[in-house]
Amino acid sequence: MESAPAIQKLLDELERMPGIGPKSAQRIAYWMLNSDRETVMRLAEAIVEVKRTVRFCSRCFNYAEDDLCGICSSSRRDASVICVVSEPRDIAAIERTAAFSGVYHVLGGALSPMDGIGPDDLHIAELLQRLAADAVQEVVLATNPNVEGETTAAYLARLIKPLGIKATRLASGLPVGGDLEFADEVTLGRAIESRRVL
Amino acid sequence: MESAPAIQKLLDELERMPGIGPKSAQRIAYWMLNSDRETVMRLAEAIVEVKRTVRFCSRCFNYAEDDLCGICSSSRRDASVICVVSEPRDIAAIERTAAFSGVYHVLGGALSPMDGIGPDDLHIAELLQRLAADAVQEVVLATNPNVEGETTAAYLARLIKPLGIKATRLASGLPVGGDLEFADEVTLGRAIESRRVL
Repeated sequence: MESAPAIQKLLDELERMPGIGPKSAQRIAYWMLNSDRETVMRLAEAIVEVKRTVRFCSRCFNYAEDDLCGICSSSRRDASVICVVSEPRDIAAIERTAAFSGVYHVLGGALSPMDGIGPDDLHIAELLQRLAADAVQEVVLATNPNVEGETTAAYLARLIKPLGIKATRLASGLPVGGDLEFADEVTLGRAIESRRVL
Repeated sequence: MESAPAIQKLLDELERMPGIGPKSAQRIAYWMLNSDRETVMRLAEAIVEVKRTVRFCSRCFNYAEDDLCGICSSSRRDASVICVVSEPRDIAAIERTAAFSGVYHVLGGALSPMDGIGPDDLHIAELLQRLAADAVQEVVLATNPNVEGETTAAYLARLIKPLGIKATRLASGLPVGGDLEFADEVTLGRAIESRRVL
């Protein structure tokens, strides 16, 4: 493709995206070259627009286009239950379940002494301010079910319980629709420990 | 993600790209949100730039930023050998082999009566003009080794031979480094038919 430096430049930039290797970048570049100008410009404008308008919600640190995100500014959400997550993308995952009607708080990561991430690097002080100011009854600790997420949840639970607020954790267990024989031993062990009376 | 319409818009546009489903689009969107503004703007600008500057070479219909593409305007290419391909992306594939030093001609597709694509829909008249005007000694028919590509190659060979110009076709056979037992029967059959004396 020595014939067009603009194409090489585009390929270089496309390959920076996560999950996009040289083959995918080339496929996308050719699609851009062969698509009508309008379609491709809409994509370029959507990228520019997202960087121009999207910021962090001043209350929960979710992505927002105004001072507050759509969830924090909604009157239909139950502000007495706060679900604590590591990243904004976790909110998207929980919202898709339609199983939660409370509000959120994004930590911006998880405690990880190995990576030098301590409590001051996360939005923990802001969470405690919210708990002091609002009438919160329950904090759902929805950090990831891995070492860092569990450590973070345990750390937060110790801070929250003395405030007289209930701290809960998402259940671990077998994936719904999954086969027992294919479950990893840690998940299966957790499912046995947390067995429910029917 | 109801909190940010700009993110939803970006996800919609990303999903139009080939090979990008909802999960990949989300992964890319979050990468854009979390990357610094400069990196993301460079990508948006590369997209705009490619649509602004890239057009078709007036001689061979490869992608070009000037009237002629880099290959047609190069003095180091042998203009007496023209390699005929279906799409500009095929040129990129052949150039990567560094096994061809001639010039190209892009048809813009392949003959396909099923899809209503006839000779007039391809850059065949322009190829014949080049053959009449330039001192061409060989035309390498490098259309794809499928039904449409073979039909197109056979059609062009019938037009080229009467002009006293050699028409050749890329060899079919086993992939280099591949295992014989994994080759499909058509490829293996072609490899047997085209066996060479050692």
